[in-house]
Amino acid sequence: MRVAIVLFERFTALDAVGPYEVLSRLPGSEVVFVSTRRGPVRTDVGSLATVADAELAEVSEPDIVLVPGGPGQSDQMTDGPLHEWLRAVDQTSSWTTSVCTGSLVLAAAGLLNGRRATTHWLAMDQLGALGAIPTAERFVLDGKYVTGAGVSAGIDMALRLVGEIAGEDLAKTIQLGIEYDPRPPHDAGSAATAPAEIVERLRANSRHLLT
Amino acid sequence: MRVAIVLFERFTALDAVGPYEVLSRLPGSEVVFVSTRRGPVRTDVGSLATVADAELAEVSEPDIVLVPGGPGQSDQMTDGPLHEWLRAVDQTSSWTTSVCTGSLVLAAAGLLNGRRATTHWLAMDQLGALGAIPTAERFVLDGKYVTGAGVSAGIDMALRLVGEIAGEDLAKTIQLGIEYDPRPPHDAGSAATAPAEIVERLRANSRHLLT
Repeated sequence: MRVAIVLFERFTALDAVGPYEVLSRLPGSEVVFVSTRRGPVRTDVGSLATVADAELAEVSEPDIVLVPGGPGQSDQMTDGPLHEWLRAVDQTSSWTTSVCTGSLVLAAAGLLNGRRATTHWLAMDQLGALGAIPTAERFVLDGKYVTGAGVSAGIDMALRLVGEIAGEDLAKTIQLGIEYDPRPPHDAGSAATAPAEIVERLRANSRHLLT
Repeated sequence: MRVAIVLFERFTALDAVGPYEVLSRLPGSEVVFVSTRRGPVRTDVGSLATVADAELAEVSEPDIVLVPGGPGQSDQMTDGPLHEWLRAVDQTSSWTTSVCTGSLVLAAAGLLNGRRATTHWLAMDQLGALGAIPTAERFVLDGKYVTGAGVSAGIDMALRLVGEIAGEDLAKTIQLGIEYDPRPPHDAGSAATAPAEIVERLRANSRHLLT
């Protein structure tokens, strides 16, 4: 299983690293972080850089492609090398996947037309405008197209993918290995459960990030 | 709030990036990744490098110190520059913290003597042997010493820290921002809930990592 995780400036770190932590534990898997050029790529906050070890052209025919989201997603919405590469690797991928607003990039590249998909809760309308069928679930499988909700959802999505690829026993083994027994201090992780004034404040503050 | 996250070769990515994703969203916080030398530091799996932007000597008096775990923790157990730095920054830190087997490093540096602390479920015995009081909880606060359980527990721990530092409303806001509404496909994230044969297999396979 060759896994290619896309990086771009101002991506959100956990979108990429959550699924990485799970998928890299698939026996025999090889993960490569890929970007338009090699070298450090800064996250949205700016205080973390992760290294792209390969350029897009160096990675062909990965089995799993994963596109993270983050504020920098808005720079990846026009046709160009990344979209061309995504359409090319999608021809042979077993799974074409995204976390958070990474699904907007997949959709903009034309890969989610008429497909059920999800994204960060603040970006559902845009996902629909790009031709996908917005679906408010933690992660959505539509054939080989697998999309996760916001940021932390990539962990759940990747564990499900491991189950599909290698069976539930391995998914459970990896879950126990990363001690994924979540105990959030509050029940505030979705727009349905968070206090309404917090939902509205985030919606107002985030509008400029999602254009 | 200045946050220093320690990197060392063969750390586990999510140990560091989970709390980073939360703590970097504290208004006014500055996060710096710090290591014995600047530059890329490879994770345990090897296919991801994150960049240390500062050397230990360049970072003094952070408010929060965080030590991740991972297989490379076993190279950080002898006295030397990292232990000296940890003892120095602990003099003035508001919070001295760890995720996973990072607590073994804190304990080896002499910072958890007689304190309640936690670690990855496979490393509880070692934590006790190093002078701490092993406590099987998702995260443990003992004064300013805050330790998280394995890998993914750093997200829960960091949300709790945000609550302590800036109040529950901000913790909920960050939780909603990263859409942390976990839905693991299985209930297998702790030794208490995972199938017994999976617990035993992991225990057998992981013995060489925890020496």
